[in-house]
Amino acid sequence: MGNTFGHMFRVTTWGESHGDAVGVVIDGCPPGLAITSDDIQPDLDRRKPGQSKITTQRKEGDKAEILSGVFQGRTLGTPISIVVSNNDQRGKDYDYMQTKFRPSHADFSYQAKYGIRNWKGGGRASARETIGRVAAAAVAKKILSEEYGIEILAYVKQVWNIVAEIDLSSVSIDDVESNIVRCPDQQIALKMIDQIEKARKSGDSLGGVVEAVARGVPAGLGDPVFDKLEADLAKGVLSLPACKGFESGLGFGAVAMTGSEHNDPFYMEDGRVRTRTNRSGGIQGGISNGEDIVIRAAFKPTATILGNQETVDEDGNASTLEGRGRHDPCVLPRAVPMVEAMMALVLVDHAIRQRGQTGSLV
Amino acid sequence: MGNTFGHMFRVTTWGESHGDAVGVVIDGCPPGLAITSDDIQPDLDRRKPGQSKITTQRKEGDKAEILSGVFQGRTLGTPISIVVSNNDQRGKDYDYMQTKFRPSHADFSYQAKYGIRNWKGGGRASARETIGRVAAAAVAKKILSEEYGIEILAYVKQVWNIVAEIDLSSVSIDDVESNIVRCPDQQIALKMIDQIEKARKSGDSLGGVVEAVARGVPAGLGDPVFDKLEADLAKGVLSLPACKGFESGLGFGAVAMTGSEHNDPFYMEDGRVRTRTNRSGGIQGGISNGEDIVIRAAFKPTATILGNQETVDEDGNASTLEGRGRHDPCVLPRAVPMVEAMMALVLVDHAIRQRGQTGSLV
Amino acid sequence: MGNTFGHMFRVTTWGESHGDAVGVVIDGCPPGLAITSDDIQPDLDRRKPGQSKITTQRKEGDKAEILSGVFQGRTLGTPISIVVSNNDQRGKDYDYMQTKFRPSHADFSYQAKYGIRNWKGGGRASARETIGRVAAAAVAKKILSEEYGIEILAYVKQVWNIVAEIDLSSVSIDDVESNIVRCPDQQIALKMIDQIEKARKSGDSLGGVVEAVARGVPAGLGDPVFDKLEADLAKGVLSLPACKGFESGLGFGAVAMTGSEHNDPFYMEDGRVRTRTNRSGGIQGGISNGEDIVIRAAFKPTATILGNQETVDEDGNASTLEGRGRHDPCVLPRAVPMVEAMMALVLVDHAIRQRGQTGSLV
Amino acid sequence: MGNTFGHMFRVTTWGESHGDAVGVVIDGCPPGLAITSDDIQPDLDRRKPGQSKITTQRKEGDKAEILSGVFQGRTLGTPISIVVSNNDQRGKDYDYMQTKFRPSHADFSYQAKYGIRNWKGGGRASARETIGRVAAAAVAKKILSEEYGIEILAYVKQVWNIVAEIDLSSVSIDDVESNIVRCPDQQIALKMIDQIEKARKSGDSLGGVVEAVARGVPAGLGDPVFDKLEADLAKGVLSLPACKGFESGLGFGAVAMTGSEHNDPFYMEDGRVRTRTNRSGGIQGGISNGEDIVIRAAFKPTATILGNQETVDEDGNASTLEGRGRHDPCVLPRAVPMVEAMMALVLVDHAIRQRGQTGSLV
Repeated sequence: MGNTFGHMFRVTTWGESHGDAVGVVIDGCPPGLAITSDDIQPDLDRRKPGQSKITTQRKEGDKAEILSGVFQGRTLGTPISIVVSNNDQRGKDYDYMQTKFRPSHADFSYQAKYGIRNWKGGGRASARETIGRVAAAAVAKKILSEEYGIEILAYVKQVWNIVAEIDLSSVSIDDVESNIVRCPDQQIALKMIDQIEKARKSGDSLGGVVEAVARGVPAGLGDPVFDKLEADLAKGVLSLPACKGFESGLGFGAVAMTGSEHNDPFYMEDGRVRTRTNRSGGIQGGISNGEDIVIRAAFKPTATILGNQETVDEDGNASTLEGRGRHDPCVLPRAVPMVEAMMALVLVDHAIRQRGQTGSLV
Repeated sequence: MGNTFGHMFRVTTWGESHGDAVGVVIDGCPPGLAITSDDIQPDLDRRKPGQSKITTQRKEGDKAEILSGVFQGRTLGTPISIVVSNNDQRGKDYDYMQTKFRPSHADFSYQAKYGIRNWKGGGRASARETIGRVAAAAVAKKILSEEYGIEILAYVKQVWNIVAEIDLSSVSIDDVESNIVRCPDQQIALKMIDQIEKARKSGDSLGGVVEAVARGVPAGLGDPVFDKLEADLAKGVLSLPACKGFESGLGFGAVAMTGSEHNDPFYMEDGRVRTRTNRSGGIQGGISNGEDIVIRAAFKPTATILGNQETVDEDGNASTLEGRGRHDPCVLPRAVPMVEAMMALVLVDHAIRQRGQTGSLV
Repeated sequence: MGNTFGHMFRVTTWGESHGDAVGVVIDGCPPGLAITSDDIQPDLDRRKPGQSKITTQRKEGDKAEILSGVFQGRTLGTPISIVVSNNDQRGKDYDYMQTKFRPSHADFSYQAKYGIRNWKGGGRASARETIGRVAAAAVAKKILSEEYGIEILAYVKQVWNIVAEIDLSSVSIDDVESNIVRCPDQQIALKMIDQIEKARKSGDSLGGVVEAVARGVPAGLGDPVFDKLEADLAKGVLSLPACKGFESGLGFGAVAMTGSEHNDPFYMEDGRVRTRTNRSGGIQGGISNGEDIVIRAAFKPTATILGNQETVDEDGNASTLEGRGRHDPCVLPRAVPMVEAMMALVLVDHAIRQRGQTGSLV
Repeated sequence: MGNTFGHMFRVTTWGESHGDAVGVVIDGCPPGLAITSDDIQPDLDRRKPGQSKITTQRKEGDKAEILSGVFQGRTLGTPISIVVSNNDQRGKDYDYMQTKFRPSHADFSYQAKYGIRNWKGGGRASARETIGRVAAAAVAKKILSEEYGIEILAYVKQVWNIVAEIDLSSVSIDDVESNIVRCPDQQIALKMIDQIEKARKSGDSLGGVVEAVARGVPAGLGDPVFDKLEADLAKGVLSLPACKGFESGLGFGAVAMTGSEHNDPFYMEDGRVRTRTNRSGGIQGGISNGEDIVIRAAFKPTATILGNQETVDEDGNASTLEGRGRHDPCVLPRAVPMVEAMMALVLVDHAIRQRGQTGSLV
């Protein structure tokens, strides 16, 4: 249970890291949308392993195959099934995981929950699971772009203690993709890359922050009181592997401000209600207000490290884990399309809901 | 849409701030639980307005009336309907809200979404909406306590820039309730109260952070990949009014650590797998690991302030809002039972799910 | 669990027959709809007990009180909470039910499921539970009528072995309401009434069939493969007390026909695709085709009868039940608004879904 | 939307008749269950085309491939993805469907709903869609059998006007599978086969009734008021292609009885509450009472026939359809595993729910 996301645009993912394949079923995609695997592949390529020297060296083509729901290049309104094969599995690299619980991985908690686990490469808990999300979100992004003019963009805001300051209003996908760490501040990006390489060499790992912005979102998306836009975004983001924090607007930064400092004054611009500032991050009362939606996701440092760590084995014996295997010293560059994916899935779901509830996007 | 929370323990809230009443329907409460309104009232009293000099002075008894689902003092397994009347409404205090959008409130976004709004006191966007959540969670807490031995406790960790350091392992409900700001550090609490009073006098407002801990949670709760425990907790917390951020474990604080600094080593204690540290906050791979679950919620400063603010009216004219009306200069003391509520609702839902899926709590 | 119906127009009912009240929360009602209790009362009056000599003589005003979700006469888009008090409860009339399981009632199965039950008057299993459905459906009917031009009408088609032949194309609400058994064939109605009175006098009970038609339904409603229009209608109808069968179109009557006899040829009329016959009952492939939707619901004879019946008590002792208490000798007249209700709830839900999925009603 | 069934045991199917493949994702399967494709294949073989002279001659191996959720022969508790390739597609056989709407098929209603359709072989509306259901139900049946001792069995009760009388208490899978029409009455079966062959030769088609029984179901399954066991069974059955009617217990046959004739008296047997008769079909108040659950499903005659039929084309021109293509003259033999499938999916879902809600199967 728990492998479906969304209410009207419903995404169900499946697959383990070292099973035969991973995939997704999209139910609720509007009919008539032009979709081919070419629409999906670019984001899968941004997510895939082995894309640069600072990611894991597992080699996967991650080619998306669309098995249903598209006919003569157009969506049918029926479920879209997308499958990606697992090829470079090297299961035996992971033999050491078979009996020992890796610290801060999901080995123990999966075993405790299910009484069984696929111990090869993290099984279902592997970030490989996000392929289905990213593939589905590529479809979602196309809907958002074509039908609503909404554009979603994420980037690395922070790695370890290296923080970039990004101008949300002008940042572009080209800025993001111009370096392998996906930080639009090119100077800071170099420092981040350098630090990640240091971590990799020392067998350690780093965390960081992804910031994401959605532009062109109409006012009126979000369903209080429980399906507030921020609530669904928070759920989406926190469901990503290694994510431990979420902010909307100024987030925790709002705490040390007073109301008079934080409030966003309203004014009129071109016949539209706008706010002078956007400390609210485009969401008020859980509903979009027409300004840019801004969120941040905190990722802990990768749990896989190469040094020796204290642990226990399945039989409850004290043991030592000697780190091995391919891994990402820092997941942030690959987390960028994942955060975009969750944002896209939430927005398209709420856009469809709102159209149903009111007959318009207001 | 969006007013139901939970999958097996389902809570549906209803009601506007200045309507006749607010309430909740609980569907999925296990049968046979001893429940009276006395189980519900204490948390409603912790949540209610007018409880101290640092909260809004609206006077409400907030008495819970149970209309169904309980028979001769025991739950039937059928829906439990709980209603709380609205009494001290003073609707006309809010006449000034009728046409002008209050900055950083939900007035504009509700109007944009629905094309209509109950402008009296914030309508559905008022924190008064949380009465239903708190009432339902009182039932949830009792189940968690009696059937699983789980205890949930929240407190104010930070107000404005005043931060308390709390020992998670020893903090008690008495510590929390020993002062009106609900911060267990009594010295810091005095500073917080003082600062809130200053804000009230100057017509301004403050935000802050609530920290919550759940003790006694068995390993195995949480349904990856989308209904991870952290994902559902994040959704629950972010669905609270004025909440803009969520952390699990070290949250954003994990970002500046390396993997070797952050990982929680496993060891055996009394035949049980434990972690030496609890940087993960009791959740790994989205599933509880048996350690204390620790989360934090960031609340922005209350949007209601007394000074003049730039705004626009419903007709799109520039205008000035002159702040009036009763309000909370700082929602934090009253947010404590709300955060506890969302944590309880998430945990009881996952406990029931897990029991269904595996026949045991593992 | 299981007390919510619908995906976008969500109805949650609550209440036991002899508790304080019964009610419903509607979540997902489009905003801006003019609604007062006057829109709801007529259908509650058609459903209420004591309305004629052939229904139970329990006296209830069944006055609907709207507690939320409507502001200045218009729906807000927020949850609509409707409550109806229980007045004429006469709990002690039902003392004999306290320990003995009434045959073919839900006493035993509720006890087996929950380990507890409200034995007064059937508790949650009482048809009194349908008040919430009928109230919610009154709102649904208004949406269907005003926004889509859809009209729903049900009537008694059969009581015991007395069957009416009704012209679906011309039958009107006035025809239905012109007699107390709600059969539009006035001659047959007299026979039905006579038979019901005979059953009442002899302490026995009768079953029957309600037929319902929805006119003006656009083509395109229904979500294959599981949420086919017929599937959701069947679920809605079978969730009514005492209902044991469902048919769409010719239903079981189609079985003895060949394909060439059953198929509905297409032709054009006024630029619209029509079918020459409507053996499909307006639904093909689980999706409405623009013709009248026709369904039938079979109700078993009321389980409450006055003679002595073999049964057992809660302690597992053989016993005899001596029938007493007020009851309906035939539920059919009061089942008419219930079947209409479920049809309306299904159609409005699918209309909202379809508008969301395609931006139009096609 | 609408391609997921179940609340705790969730089945999502995908695929068009003449796409690359069809399949299913099962979410919520309990962990630790021994499953291989050998558990799934037998029911797929009972469902598959070309199995006898009275079914369509399309040739498909319908081999199930399990891509995830099973590890070393045991379920992981993670989603189980099962894929079946489409091989013998002969798309061009269906060219004639491209522009003309086949009467009583879903061509027109799909086009009206989605504005597009896969016209090859019925696309998503083809009974080929049920492969995913049958595969998932094979897993469900194994859970029901191993964990609960529940056995599900369906058979053909009626073809056209040829009706079999079956002893529900003694009928076995061997009786059912002993002839190609799957009617346990061997004499009647011969007549049915003969009639189906006549229909096939004359290019016509026949409908019929499938009856299904579930034995060993404990009392207590079903979630009133909307998710009553009968309501979910009715939904499941009516979601099958060509199904137009549903009965529980005596169904429409109960209508002509009086209450005193229909009620099932209770008595004790071996310390268990039993009913002398089972007119209720094992369900009272929407909850199983421990007796055999008995349902019936009515299937209309197959819409595909070989004669000329009046129709219209996509452009709204009057036209004549000349029937061609492979088809089933009578779906009943292949509908048997489909009805079993829906019954199994409903029962396993409610068994898991009940275990969650009460911690036991009562």
